[in-house]
Amino acid sequence: MWGAIEHLGRDDRTRGYLRDAWSPADLELRAWFRQEAARRGLAVREDRNGNLWAWWGDPSDRPGVVTGSHLDSVRQGGAFDGPLGIVSAFAALDALAAKGFEPARPLGIACFTDEEGARFGVPCTGSRLLTGALDPDRARGLTDDEGDSMAEVLRRAGRDPGALGRDDETLGHVGVFVELHVEQGRGLVHAGAPVGVASTIWPHGRWRFDFRGQANHAGTTRLQDRDDPMLPFARTVLHARELAERGGVVATFGRLRVSPGNANAVPGLVSAWLDARGGDETAVRTLVAELTAFSGAEVGNESWTPAVDFDAVLRDRLALVAAEAVARRTAPPDAADGRGRPPRSARDAAGGAAGAVAPVPVLPTGAGHDAGILAAAGVPGAMVFVRNPTGISHSPEEHAEASDCHLGVAALAAILEDLCQS
Amino acid sequence: MWGAIEHLGRDDRTRGYLRDAWSPADLELRAWFRQEAARRGLAVREDRNGNLWAWWGDPSDRPGVVTGSHLDSVRQGGAFDGPLGIVSAFAALDALAAKGFEPARPLGIACFTDEEGARFGVPCTGSRLLTGALDPDRARGLTDDEGDSMAEVLRRAGRDPGALGRDDETLGHVGVFVELHVEQGRGLVHAGAPVGVASTIWPHGRWRFDFRGQANHAGTTRLQDRDDPMLPFARTVLHARELAERGGVVATFGRLRVSPGNANAVPGLVSAWLDARGGDETAVRTLVAELTAFSGAEVGNESWTPAVDFDAVLRDRLALVAAEAVARRTAPPDAADGRGRPPRSARDAAGGAAGAVAPVPVLPTGAGHDAGILAAAGVPGAMVFVRNPTGISHSPEEHAEASDCHLGVAALAAILEDLCQS
Repeated sequence: MWGAIEHLGRDDRTRGYLRDAWSPADLELRAWFRQEAARRGLAVREDRNGNLWAWWGDPSDRPGVVTGSHLDSVRQGGAFDGPLGIVSAFAALDALAAKGFEPARPLGIACFTDEEGARFGVPCTGSRLLTGALDPDRARGLTDDEGDSMAEVLRRAGRDPGALGRDDETLGHVGVFVELHVEQGRGLVHAGAPVGVASTIWPHGRWRFDFRGQANHAGTTRLQDRDDPMLPFARTVLHARELAERGGVVATFGRLRVSPGNANAVPGLVSAWLDARGGDETAVRTLVAELTAFSGAEVGNESWTPAVDFDAVLRDRLALVAAEAVARRTAPPDAADGRGRPPRSARDAAGGAAGAVAPVPVLPTGAGHDAGILAAAGVPGAMVFVRNPTGISHSPEEHAEASDCHLGVAALAAILEDLCQS
Repeated sequence: MWGAIEHLGRDDRTRGYLRDAWSPADLELRAWFRQEAARRGLAVREDRNGNLWAWWGDPSDRPGVVTGSHLDSVRQGGAFDGPLGIVSAFAALDALAAKGFEPARPLGIACFTDEEGARFGVPCTGSRLLTGALDPDRARGLTDDEGDSMAEVLRRAGRDPGALGRDDETLGHVGVFVELHVEQGRGLVHAGAPVGVASTIWPHGRWRFDFRGQANHAGTTRLQDRDDPMLPFARTVLHARELAERGGVVATFGRLRVSPGNANAVPGLVSAWLDARGGDETAVRTLVAELTAFSGAEVGNESWTPAVDFDAVLRDRLALVAAEAVARRTAPPDAADGRGRPPRSARDAAGGAAGAVAPVPVLPTGAGHDAGILAAAGVPGAMVFVRNPTGISHSPEEHAEASDCHLGVAALAAILEDLCQS
């Protein structure tokens, strides 16, 4: 499946991906999702917020088990963040179908829209709109770098911006959501494990700092006559780092807009986006409050996601199921049924004795995900992480070994099988 | 004339202009220039470097007197920087024609290409290529924000990039060049004068600082694992200000490119353009050397223009001619010929006695201009400045009063008449 999408939205100079929501690349990726679903006989529908759902079985009868992720990327992002969860979902369904498994509940694959927020600045807009965490009026009014509003962009893509908003019918189809994702750190490397599951998602948010000054000529304006917003911005960058170190959190300025942006003009406006996260919500909020006061900028909150603790019972159960699947795939053939094929029951894999295989690592993460948005809205969920050798993410160098990806698929298939037993 | 061009390339949200070289707006402005020239029976030609020349008389017989400026803008620039010199040139020729003046030498209007360097980063490319100050291979390889080279952009505009380079034939047509420009400071405000002339252009240059780090996820990468280039950039911004204050020069970071530029990613690369200028070349070079060492960035020089001292004899003569023209226009009717029309001879205006009118102010400037590039190449030149009430330039708030602009035209017409007497 990778071959069909690896070139879509790729910048051939940097090898990084540019897959903004509703861009031509994103529309092609959405078409590819529909094709893959159709090839497997899955019914596809797009909900009112642009999220795609491919179903094996009918979730209007009974809430289903859903897996999936997203296909959009950060700008100059890597190949795995998002697509690995979709490709693995299709591969896991293939593995289940190949062994003749018949799910006792509807089984779905979700592709969430605009998870990264690269275009309009707010991440997870698809899942936030679905659950009502993002006001549809605010979403419609968000603008991209061209000044086009989300409403205009949706209309151009043939969608109805008036339909955005909380969608209880679609939400009601999701009994449980499991998202597989490349790890965005080196927790699994340190643990020596190819696969893990998530414990919590750190509270995190995004704030826009507007530093206003007076645009002027860079050659003819005396230093004492300048009101150059680049100076308070620079002081704020350095102060953010100090505050983050002191507070045990992370703070990043990764996106900037300088206006007018000429080499020969003193800027009139520097807009900078602060991303702040940490294990402790109070520490994150304290940093933002102190930095706002320090900066002198106009500061607006663009998104905030409280801490999400994934259901502990589900998490522990899936950590064991995943461990058994991995053990089955990595054990020599005679440890299974002697012919290299997986045994009938996952529990049998560990030799029939529960607990003979240790669960996969359970890790917190500083990254936001649609699974976190759904969990915050009361949808039971879990996340499966696949090892990332360097920990690098949101970069063309993001990577996962093929062998680890295959173990991720095996773990995901076992989890879906387990969740669809009854 | 303003009515025909004031909307071209204007951003209606900010009222700032976006007139990159060879953009649709720039092409429309060039077409407007040709129309205005044709309307007056002037012969127009475009030279090998894209500069436009409108001639009253044939400069292949004898080098002519040329006035003019440029039509491109910085991004989000004002209406006057550039176009005021072109509009005033046409208006001055109209004034001369209306009084029946027949120039004894060819009289031309020049429109230089890409004076601001907003698109490809190097200012005054049209005049630099013309004089050989910019290597044509380097120019062809410069890229814009889309990654398109100047060669590609020229080809798309129907021009031959292979023709770029020093053009002695065109240069040989220019006996003297006088550029009228809105002042980019408040020197004339302080002097209480509507019009002035230039003494020198400060030495100035542009350098690109590339701060390299490692792009990574803003949420999952621990502070101690980060290599965030925004931090050394911020320190360098603050240090540049300190060094500029110490050295008595100006230094500006007004253009930035952050890659990948996502709010949720630690940047991998921050590219920042330093503009540095001052009355003393050694002080400017010292600042750049110290800042380069401090920054740890890869630093490349994109342009450098040594100090330009305009011809002092010409300058002093034109300062007097301009003063007489201004005095004639601002004196009550009975001080002239009693009918409010200008007297035949400029010298008569001051009551027949040379020196009865003080010359207009003579000012240095920190701004680069095509007149400076030509002067550095040995073409005698001068500049006329029109008062700018706020001193603001390279901003939508750039302004000059209509009455001052009319005095600028009167001064320019008198200067051209003086230079074309024989």
